[in-house]
Amino acid sequence: MRIVVLAGGIGGARFLRGLKQAAPEADITVIGNTGDDIHLFGLKVCPDLDTVMYTLGGGINEEQGWGRTDESFRVKEELAAYGVGPEWFGLGDRDFATHIVRTQMLSAGYPLSAVTEALCTRWNPGVRLLPMSDDRVETHVAVELDGERKVIHFQEYWVKLRASLPADAVVPVGADQAKPAPGVLEAIAAADVILFPPSNPVVSVGTILAVPGIREAIAEAGVPVVGLSPIVGDAPVRGMADKVLAAVGVEATAEAVARHYGSGLLDGWLVDTVDAGAVAGVEDAGIRCRAVPLMMTDLDATAEMARQALALALEVRA
Amino acid sequence: MRIVVLAGGIGGARFLRGLKQAAPEADITVIGNTGDDIHLFGLKVCPDLDTVMYTLGGGINEEQGWGRTDESFRVKEELAAYGVGPEWFGLGDRDFATHIVRTQMLSAGYPLSAVTEALCTRWNPGVRLLPMSDDRVETHVAVELDGERKVIHFQEYWVKLRASLPADAVVPVGADQAKPAPGVLEAIAAADVILFPPSNPVVSVGTILAVPGIREAIAEAGVPVVGLSPIVGDAPVRGMADKVLAAVGVEATAEAVARHYGSGLLDGWLVDTVDAGAVAGVEDAGIRCRAVPLMMTDLDATAEMARQALALALEVRA
Repeated sequence: MRIVVLAGGIGGARFLRGLKQAAPEADITVIGNTGDDIHLFGLKVCPDLDTVMYTLGGGINEEQGWGRTDESFRVKEELAAYGVGPEWFGLGDRDFATHIVRTQMLSAGYPLSAVTEALCTRWNPGVRLLPMSDDRVETHVAVELDGERKVIHFQEYWVKLRASLPADAVVPVGADQAKPAPGVLEAIAAADVILFPPSNPVVSVGTILAVPGIREAIAEAGVPVVGLSPIVGDAPVRGMADKVLAAVGVEATAEAVARHYGSGLLDGWLVDTVDAGAVAGVEDAGIRCRAVPLMMTDLDATAEMARQALALALEVRA
Repeated sequence: MRIVVLAGGIGGARFLRGLKQAAPEADITVIGNTGDDIHLFGLKVCPDLDTVMYTLGGGINEEQGWGRTDESFRVKEELAAYGVGPEWFGLGDRDFATHIVRTQMLSAGYPLSAVTEALCTRWNPGVRLLPMSDDRVETHVAVELDGERKVIHFQEYWVKLRASLPADAVVPVGADQAKPAPGVLEAIAAADVILFPPSNPVVSVGTILAVPGIREAIAEAGVPVVGLSPIVGDAPVRGMADKVLAAVGVEATAEAVARHYGSGLLDGWLVDTVDAGAVAGVEDAGIRCRAVPLMMTDLDATAEMARQALALALEVRA
């Protein structure tokens, strides 16, 4: 079975770990969000790709869900001693090495997809990890800051400001000019199932879908497309998805997110059991819906979510 | 008193520390060798400038003479885990930060001299530290390796091979096209005294003198130029200067090095007391010479060497 998964960072990575357990024989291609990418200290940082790579490769800091296990911050401390920031982005020493290798390869002319493949030869994530695009895309957020409308990098909004201000707009800058990375459209065309993990529907899955060609390829693939709600009980399971949903005029509910993706894209949708009341509304929108436990409390629970998603895909196809 | 010092790495840096103690009121400009510079992991590393900066700024690893005190090597270990080397060059985590800041500023368009000045605002070395040039110069060494003549980077010769092979030639690649950095010729023209510390006469001081205009400016400055022999008792005080002296056809003796600089450049030369027998020969070459203790065993001994150099400069001028 060939499965394509559109993934953001922590939520996507943890779901993938469950999916690998649920479908150990499957051939899984992950299309990773690169809209979170940021240049820091002259280095190219790809937080979502790295979170997937570290999580599936056994290098993740389990507790925080991002960054490396057993991490230290000596480089960052020294940079701060030089007065060079930002200090709000937590780049650890081990993590720095990844960005140094990536930046060196990019400078040598390799596209991000080739660099990601090279990094994965170390991590052996057990999936094929593709960036959504080799072209630069950067999600920017419009906010009101000190009485002025300002457009800031997504990471500044998310990490520095902890999404504490309402977002007026979320724009994946460069997405409209970006091309899907080599292999992305081919993987979608060859897929048996396409899954949207409980990743952020705006700044993770939404950004991937903003790359021209990807949404169309998924809609036209003729295979089941099943998503898992990142909203449980009208609140994001983790992260601050409600803040960026508001910016695109979508309520933070399991049903509203399903309708946001729409039946043109989505064939099936899993909501949490606490949102069982939303099933009828989602099905009214033309999307098959089931209520199952959606909290990724441990690997077994996550694997069961993946099984349910694959079961719904089978049901949709039948 | 305005003193200009042409400095390499460890020897130059330690001498400068003694000079600062010997002449606390002096206005010292250091023209640093950049022929040792190397690009590693996509980062610009300037070992000699950093050794001077760290030594005078209190950040040096005293025992080894280069690199940072209280250093760790986590980034390097991770790079090795990615299969990315070289492993033979000891870049520590704290040191990495310096190269990251430098590379970021260079990429932003600042010349090396401006970058060095910026880094020094943190370290306050108490001297004005100028790179010999803002242009790229890289010392390469020709050796016979596995039966073939190969040209390798100086650091590969020096650090990886520990100068274990005879050097057929030492070439400061790019030096002939390089221009002195802003302030270099002005500092020489305004100097009261010019000193050559016991740095390597070929790959440190020699490389600086290879930048067109610098040798001429020193020769024409009309002020005393005094050097200290890096060779004591027919062997280098530290490092492997004898190996590269052989490549340029110069014997590893205090007298031969003085004659190599020549009376057109050098007015005074200090040899160690064990080389007192060389004094007459040096003076025969038209260079005033004194035999004094030249081992930089501690700061006081080093300061005394600096005092002797300044005394010889006075004597030469009189």
